[in-house]
Formats: sequence, structure tokens, C-alpha cells
Amino acid sequence: MCELLGMSANVPTDICFSFKGLRERGGHTGPHKDGWGVAFYEDKGVCIFKDPQPSYESEIARLISDYPIKSKAVIAHVRQANRGKVAMANTHPFSRELWGRNWTYAHNGQLHGYQSLPFERYTPVGTTDSERAFCYLLSELEKRFPNGPGKRVSAFNHLKKLSNKLREFGIFNMLITDGEYLLAFCSTKLQWITRRAPFGIAHLSDVDVDIDFAKETTPHDVVTIIATEPLTANEQWHKMQPGEAQLFRFGEPI
Amino acid sequence: MCELLGMSANVPTDICFSFKGLRERGGHTGPHKDGWGVAFYEDKGVCIFKDPQPSYESEIARLISDYPIKSKAVIAHVRQANRGKVAMANTHPFSRELWGRNWTYAHNGQLHGYQSLPFERYTPVGTTDSERAFCYLLSELEKRFPNGPGKRVSAFNHLKKLSNKLREFGIFNMLITDGEYLLAFCSTKLQWITRRAPFGIAHLSDVDVDIDFAKETTPHDVVTIIATEPLTANEQWHKMQPGEAQLFRFGEPI
Repeated sequence: MCELLGMSANVPTDICFSFKGLRERGGHTGPHKDGWGVAFYEDKGVCIFKDPQPSYESEIARLISDYPIKSKAVIAHVRQANRGKVAMANTHPFSRELWGRNWTYAHNGQLHGYQSLPFERYTPVGTTDSERAFCYLLSELEKRFPNGPGKRVSAFNHLKKLSNKLREFGIFNMLITDGEYLLAFCSTKLQWITRRAPFGIAHLSDVDVDIDFAKETTPHDVVTIIATEPLTANEQWHKMQPGEAQLFRFGEPI
Repeated sequence: MCELLGMSANVPTDICFSFKGLRERGGHTGPHKDGWGVAFYEDKGVCIFKDPQPSYESEIARLISDYPIKSKAVIAHVRQANRGKVAMANTHPFSRELWGRNWTYAHNGQLHGYQSLPFERYTPVGTTDSERAFCYLLSELEKRFPNGPGKRVSAFNHLKKLSNKLREFGIFNMLITDGEYLLAFCSTKLQWITRRAPFGIAHLSDVDVDIDFAKETTPHDVVTIIATEPLTANEQWHKMQPGEAQLFRFGEPI
């Protein structure tokens, strides 16, 4: 299995604190040592760092957890391989362009019979069930809205339906974003928390690190973090139910 | 304008030495301070680091020039913006999937009337002439070989023709790769050098750094470096002519 991490924020925000926790689960406090990746958006542009090495040992992951890269939309993933060998081509997040926007996605779970999932415009590069499902999702989106959706929310509503269908193939927890909207879909486990003023102190579960968000933010900041398991020990996270989808935009659940 | 850097090698090789030189040109020895990027392939998978900050000041670029990431195919770029503002979405290299492979591309030059370049399957995300030309190239490739080319070299031969056509729109020096083949197209300036045994000592032009390749390689290594301007002061680079294209695979010109 794997672990997911996502962020949606109304101001460019770094993810150092949360990523520091996730990174530990990639070979130290967790078994997810078969690669890691993180996508940072700056408006419609995206930069995706990925590495088939364990995040806990990766020099690049160390930089990401120390160096504040600010973004309003982030998707990260640590991998424990089941379908597809340990390789760059099988490392999440995956990304493709559709309607002139970069779509980025990561998956936690395992699918059966996924070889029958049709894809048209998008062809998998690697050999994972996850990328195959991503190609299916985007190919179906493009078929449903060949000229783009009138409202972008319609595309995400269609993704919810498709994701629910993918549950028939196994476990399908996932995060997908176009850089502005971020959809979280829960098949078995996914939790989220929205932080806003008054901000408090948070303590990571996986490593002895505290942060006082009041010192790092302004009173107008709204930041949502989504994760497979809560990353902090002293906060109340919202636990999603199987089949539940939640869309976020600029930090707010919508 | 901008500067290009490419590498093709028969064994996974790091690009620290060459990137160290290129990085200096991004705001120190050169004016290309409007972003930088570098794509590293591992088989069919690719990781693209990019940053709209000057490479000379970028912490991420510092890591890339010190930390040996080994690859057989690399494309890097430092940008001096002309078309399109300084932004992640306008930062090279650009990448898209075609026929289940990641295609990565970077451009040096400036195109006029590029808004008339048709594209179909691939839509630009940013506002550069460069990405527009990339979308045109890949859309045309897909139209010419809707089910993929029988031999992959045929795709690159078609890219040579299309690149020659793009010279009608202005200056079009470019590098494009599918992770195995790497095509260099010269419109005004591009040079390359193939290093093989017996290896010698090279000295960077932009910063006082030497390397003894004999200590870093085995006698079977073949590594080609392509750059806008030679990166070393004591070696003979092959200067390409306007309209000349050169394909490389695993370090060898073919």
C-alpha cells in the first residue's frame, strides 16, 4: 500500500511540516520505502519531484522537508510497491495535460482486473494499476467533455462518479488536482483537517517536531491538509467514509 | 534568449559537472535568470526539476549541481524570458506523453507568428512560443503516426522535417527526447562533444572547476553533451550548422 498527502490553500503555503511527517513513513516509521513524489503547483504550472529511493534516505526529500516551496495545491505520495516494480515510471504522482491544464494524481490501494480498464487518449508509461486508472479517468473525462466542461466543477463531479466505479476493482483512495480544485476520494481511509485562525500549535505523530502555525500564517490563511492517516497527534482530523468524495478549492471544502 | 544543455549516455551518468557550468549562466556569468529546469530519465520514467527562480540563486539547482542523479538522457535549460512572463508554466523543459512514452523538450530562440501554429491533441498550459511549438510538434507526430511509428527513428526523422519548417518562424534551436533517443536541432547555435576512452581532464569555462573523467568513468562509457555554447575551455566541441539535426542514442551520434 502507500500513503497520500494533499494540500489546498488560499495563499501560497509550504508543506515542510506535513512532508516531514510523511517522509518518515517512507522507510522509517512506515514501510513505504519504494519511492516517493510531490507535486507543487504555481498557478497552472507544476513541478513534480519524484524518486524511486526511500523518502527517509533521499537527499531530495530532505531538501523538500527543509526548503519552503510555497504553493496553493500540492499532492504527495510515498509508495509501497504492489503492482509494478520499483522504478521512476511507476512512482507517483502521475501527471497529464488536459484542456490546457496539468492534472496530477496519486493513488493508495490495489486494484484487481484493472487490465480491462479502457483508455484512449492517455497511455500508461509504467506498469502500475494506479497509472492505468489515471489514464482511464482522464480518457473518460475527455470523452465526456470533448471541448472542456462549461464549469470545471462538472469535471470533478464526473470524476467522483468514475472513482466510485473504480471501487469495484479494489481499493481506490486517491487525490487529483488541476492546480486549483483538489478532489479527495475515500475508498477505505483518508482524513483531512482545515486550519484557519485562531491557529494553534501542532505536533507531528512520526517525529518529535512542533510547529506554532500562528507564527507562520496571517489571520486570513485557510489551509487544508489531506492524508491517509493523521499526521499530527494533537488535532482533530475529519475521517472520510468509504465512497465519500470531498472537493477543495483554495483551502475550503466545497 | 536561453541556453540548452543535453546529455545522452550509454550508462547512467550524472550531469553535475556540466550543470555546474550551466547554472552559472543563470544569473551570474550569463543573463538567463528567468527560471531553469532539468529532466532526468530513468528508463521510460522522468523526473523534471524546474523553478522560475534564477538557477544561480536556487537551492534546488544547488542540490542538482552537487548531488549525482544518474541518467542516460537529460535535458536542461536556463531561461531569459522573451515570450511569456516568468512563471512555472513557462519554465522549460516541457513534457507530454505520446505512445506511452514521456517526451521532453526545451527550446532556445524566439518565434514570430507562432500563434498560427496548429495544435490538436496537445494544448499549451503556459504562454510561451516554445511550448506552443512543442504542442505543434507532438500533435503533428501523432497525426503522422496515429498508431505509433513502426521504427522510433521514423518519428525523429519526421521531427527533423518539422523543426526545419519551424525555422521559418524565427530561431529554433531545440532538444527533444523520448528517454532513449535525443534529437538536437540547430537553427543558429548548438554544439556537442562525445567523450569516450581515453578520458582526460576537462575545465569549465564559467567557473574554476576541473574534472578528471578518467576517474569518474569506465573504459566502456560513451557520453555526449550538447550545449548552446561549449561548457569547457580545453576541449574541441562540434559546432552544428544552421538547419543541421543530429540524433543521439546511448551516447552515440547516429
